[in-house]
Amino acid sequence: MAPAKSLAQELAAKQREISVAEFFERNRQILGFDNPTRALLTTVKEAVDNALDAAEEARVLPEIHVEITKEGTDRLKVAVDDNGPGILRKEIPNVFGRLLYGSRFHANRQSRGQQGIGISAAVLYAGLTTARPARVLSKVLEEEAAHALELSIDTQRNLPRVVSEDVELWDRPSGTRIELTLKAKYIRGRQSPTEYLRGTAIVNPHARLTLLEPDGTRITYERATTELPPLPKESPPHPYGLELGELDYRLKGSKRPTVAQFLTQELSGVGPRALKEILAHAGLSGRETPPKLPAEKIERLLAAVHAVPLVAPSAESLSPIGSLLIKRGLKNVLGEVRPEFYAPAVSRPPKVRGGFPFVVEVGLVYGGGLPADQPMQLLRFANRVPLLFQQGACAITTAVGALDWRRYGLDQKGGNGLPTGPCLVLVHVASTKIPFTSEAKEALAEDPELDKELTLALQAAARHLKVHLSRRTRRDYAAEKFAIILKILPKLAAKTSGLVGKPVPDLTPIITRIMDIVHVETAEPIGGAAVVIPTKITNYTPRPRVLEVFLEMPIDQLPQAEFTPAPDGVDRELGRAWWTLPKLAPNTDVTVTATFPKGAEVEASDLEFYVAGVDEARLIGAEPLPGDWDVRLPRAVIEAAEQAGEPVVAGEEAEVDYDAEEGKAQVDDD
Amino acid sequence: MAPAKSLAQELAAKQREISVAEFFERNRQILGFDNPTRALLTTVKEAVDNALDAAEEARVLPEIHVEITKEGTDRLKVAVDDNGPGILRKEIPNVFGRLLYGSRFHANRQSRGQQGIGISAAVLYAGLTTARPARVLSKVLEEEAAHALELSIDTQRNLPRVVSEDVELWDRPSGTRIELTLKAKYIRGRQSPTEYLRGTAIVNPHARLTLLEPDGTRITYERATTELPPLPKESPPHPYGLELGELDYRLKGSKRPTVAQFLTQELSGVGPRALKEILAHAGLSGRETPPKLPAEKIERLLAAVHAVPLVAPSAESLSPIGSLLIKRGLKNVLGEVRPEFYAPAVSRPPKVRGGFPFVVEVGLVYGGGLPADQPMQLLRFANRVPLLFQQGACAITTAVGALDWRRYGLDQKGGNGLPTGPCLVLVHVASTKIPFTSEAKEALAEDPELDKELTLALQAAARHLKVHLSRRTRRDYAAEKFAIILKILPKLAAKTSGLVGKPVPDLTPIITRIMDIVHVETAEPIGGAAVVIPTKITNYTPRPRVLEVFLEMPIDQLPQAEFTPAPDGVDRELGRAWWTLPKLAPNTDVTVTATFPKGAEVEASDLEFYVAGVDEARLIGAEPLPGDWDVRLPRAVIEAAEQAGEPVVAGEEAEVDYDAEEGKAQVDDD
Repeated sequence: MAPAKSLAQELAAKQREISVAEFFERNRQILGFDNPTRALLTTVKEAVDNALDAAEEARVLPEIHVEITKEGTDRLKVAVDDNGPGILRKEIPNVFGRLLYGSRFHANRQSRGQQGIGISAAVLYAGLTTARPARVLSKVLEEEAAHALELSIDTQRNLPRVVSEDVELWDRPSGTRIELTLKAKYIRGRQSPTEYLRGTAIVNPHARLTLLEPDGTRITYERATTELPPLPKESPPHPYGLELGELDYRLKGSKRPTVAQFLTQELSGVGPRALKEILAHAGLSGRETPPKLPAEKIERLLAAVHAVPLVAPSAESLSPIGSLLIKRGLKNVLGEVRPEFYAPAVSRPPKVRGGFPFVVEVGLVYGGGLPADQPMQLLRFANRVPLLFQQGACAITTAVGALDWRRYGLDQKGGNGLPTGPCLVLVHVASTKIPFTSEAKEALAEDPELDKELTLALQAAARHLKVHLSRRTRRDYAAEKFAIILKILPKLAAKTSGLVGKPVPDLTPIITRIMDIVHVETAEPIGGAAVVIPTKITNYTPRPRVLEVFLEMPIDQLPQAEFTPAPDGVDRELGRAWWTLPKLAPNTDVTVTATFPKGAEVEASDLEFYVAGVDEARLIGAEPLPGDWDVRLPRAVIEAAEQAGEPVVAGEEAEVDYDAEEGKAQVDDD
Repeated sequence: MAPAKSLAQELAAKQREISVAEFFERNRQILGFDNPTRALLTTVKEAVDNALDAAEEARVLPEIHVEITKEGTDRLKVAVDDNGPGILRKEIPNVFGRLLYGSRFHANRQSRGQQGIGISAAVLYAGLTTARPARVLSKVLEEEAAHALELSIDTQRNLPRVVSEDVELWDRPSGTRIELTLKAKYIRGRQSPTEYLRGTAIVNPHARLTLLEPDGTRITYERATTELPPLPKESPPHPYGLELGELDYRLKGSKRPTVAQFLTQELSGVGPRALKEILAHAGLSGRETPPKLPAEKIERLLAAVHAVPLVAPSAESLSPIGSLLIKRGLKNVLGEVRPEFYAPAVSRPPKVRGGFPFVVEVGLVYGGGLPADQPMQLLRFANRVPLLFQQGACAITTAVGALDWRRYGLDQKGGNGLPTGPCLVLVHVASTKIPFTSEAKEALAEDPELDKELTLALQAAARHLKVHLSRRTRRDYAAEKFAIILKILPKLAAKTSGLVGKPVPDLTPIITRIMDIVHVETAEPIGGAAVVIPTKITNYTPRPRVLEVFLEMPIDQLPQAEFTPAPDGVDRELGRAWWTLPKLAPNTDVTVTATFPKGAEVEASDLEFYVAGVDEARLIGAEPLPGDWDVRLPRAVIEAAEQAGEPVVAGEEAEVDYDAEEGKAQVDDD
């Protein structure tokens, strides 16, 4: 049976290594170069993402110019330059002309570029479609002139090929410029360079971006803040979610003399106490040499790090946008739409998946000029980069669609999928490693940990929307009722009194009996030396009441607020404060005032009031205290109260069980 | 400003090459290893796809065993073996322990594996999650024993590491077995190994697959044919869709002495006549040395190959399933569902995108036990591999959702998205290069050429469905009407005749005046020495008619059919035949019989009849001739008719304009 042997040999003769550049040349759709429209967007995106990373690393406010000009019928020239630190001459060819080469892949911190593929892929695509080399101009600070290189990629070897080289004067103190000529098509609107830049401006309010369109139009996205986000710090992986093979690999490669040092230095979250517990749990002394640890001990060590409670992952390696800047970024670009409601943005605490920390943030905007008969607009972002493609294949979309938005006041067919309404939702995932579904970095893969955080953040944002909508409806209804009662009743009383010749009676009991509500109204901020937001709480019920009032507001604004009267408790972690107000007689009111430093960006809608013990039907302008709230007094408050010998409403860990039944808060009954 | 310089230097110091294995280790979700359930499926899929490719290359009917067994709480062992040609000892480590290494990437022909990533990725994942090496057993034909290797991957260098080696007796004459222990979870149902194997069985009816589940259950998918599909042949790229950079690259790498030889030997579709035209168009002599062609001449050459008409791409490099086997494959696994209708499967002629030929095939099944209140079941396949994930991000899904299925008889909200109904659609795309959206190979990228073919194929299948549904409705209605008329009229006539003492009159004029239809009824096949399918055509109208009848059937079944009476024309390319039947008096019929060889797999529903010149309301069991049909007589028929001195209905290229107006086909009027 000689032929079969030769078949195996024949097949063996055909076996060969595939260069990663060749692979992506043949599979450029994987990198986002499917067609001329998308190829343009991907090129702009890769160049701008790199430019933003570079400027932030240099700790300067990013100043980025994008120029797109026509070159023949189906070609465009794309040029992007930045004010980053520049790239050393010797690194230029590899950075732009070699796939899987970069500085950020091994750094365990949030950055836009992570793969070392993107910009080289654009160079590859340009060469493939127009056979033109890329032109790179780069200048580092004290060099007099910039290096100007023309280069292409030798795909079979995945190595750069420098075509020409020169030096050139450049007015930037330092920075990098890349120019590419490629088969491309310029469009506006959906999935266009302008949509990408607008999205980038929202989540990078510290960047200034300009775009020169092929027809000569110039568009500028001005910055909304001059504060640079802190530079994320590199941090070792957190043991939570660490796999056996990875632990094995890290131990084998470790240069630390002992396993104890490996655990505390090359993993994050392992403090001295945890170290002791881990070693005891795994039956190790800690003095073992990491690379020599035998297989069965590695398995026990992994079980131990998963069993022992560890310090939560640090957020230092991340750069979330923060609720304040999410709102400001949204306002900066949604100005013309004039939404009626910006929900307080949600920025969740950091969590870990597979050893990598991540944070989920959600912003929500409602009403105004947003279209009412269209599906919700969903803006997806990962590490401050807008995701414009593959919305249907993204874990963010899945999480949004899985929420029953009908419960929060939006239309949604069958209770799943994107809801309909004048609503825009922004979702940002920041992580040291984003689980993209492909190298085109346009969609996030499904992950149970990620999904949980997405759901929690979306629910929190949706709850704000619900409060807004129901408050609006009931306030409108109450205002109408008020107007009638306050207009007609006194006239009626005056007429009747006149007829019977008696004095006009006190209408309070009648008015309160008809109204029978507790009215909470937060006025718009009063500016000046400080920003003052008063909230008037009126008892329009026929009974005197001792009201327990809770305030929720963005956690980054709570610390700068001062309240009159002083609250009985503050929970900074959840952004809440609460008061037991002095007894309010019928038809009397009390005002709670929040005072912020001058220039604070805070609005009436940032303050959400909840009242315990009054049912929904009797509350206007506030919500009943949700049944699922864990109303706990912070430790500091409890301690202070204990020291002062005062009783505290809730003990440490104990929950105050707010009975939602009407009447509990009544003290007197007349 | 020294610090900035050091920043550029600092960044430069961090620049480094990223090994492709490291890259995918950190981004394993890109390869389909997101979670334990999917990791299992991807592992099975990669191993079985390789096994099928191997057996087909060895020209043996694939015989593949999959065993999944439990190993501890969250681990499974997966073993897959095949009867392929085996792998030479020296190639085993690279094939299984190195990413981007393989024999099929550079071969321009259809195969399941193309990337040289899949199975090594499974080895990588197994090592990462359990730190266990892969075990490979492989035997080539005349070697006495099999090589048994244990190996893992050195991810930093992307190279295999052989852990142990041995020889072992194996009862397979030749073949390969891979065993992996991985963190995995076994499920049944959606996106499970059984769903994958069932799908594989549908589109690989020549393969026999067995699965041993972790609980010991054994499932076998028997083959539905013993005919091996032809092995696709390697073919050079077709110039259609070739990019400038790629042409440049191919010219530079060519070893042919002249551009003329390059064009005819290293591209497909360039015949001697086209070569002349291309050279003239490009202003070249053809004697130029390929690597020395200057840039501007390359541009002109590209313009020329795009301008000159070329021979269509050959289908030799592809292995479509064919309409017959699509249907047989569907029947083989849908047996229990007993669908009422299998549409003739659509297998489109090959087209080209970006130089790579491709074919789209569509099968459609309706009714029976398929759920009526659910969205259509969509089975997606690429190169005979089922696609189970990312349905929402796939160009196939987009094409299905873009069709207005309401026009074809299914419910569909808003006229887009998956329709609702007891319907299953199978779509297979075969190509020398499938445009997957990621290395996980689960969805196809959008592409205008691909979309066009998908739409045409889906429309053709949907048209069959529409014909079936409307035929069924009208047949049911007519049968009801018939039954009443044929039962009551004679009784009425007999009674009346008796009363007036006259003979019972001929009821034909009355019956035909009430019925006023042309009735076409195809009986189920009569087996025996041959398969005979008679179709009875009855003129139940009150006028004699000369009917023009058209038959459409699957193109691969037409050639083996013999018809009585002989058709007046046959178009093999479109699978059509037609007759001008002898004049039919009212209430008389004629039978057209199709005879197929013994054992032919053909059914009544494969034959679709169309009648010209009779409007829809008067036709039962057939459709009016669609207005958009180009009714052309094939050249051979015309020539034969000309030689015989007979008049032909339609001349070469001329279209017969069938006036749909009732009455055109009437010859006599009584």
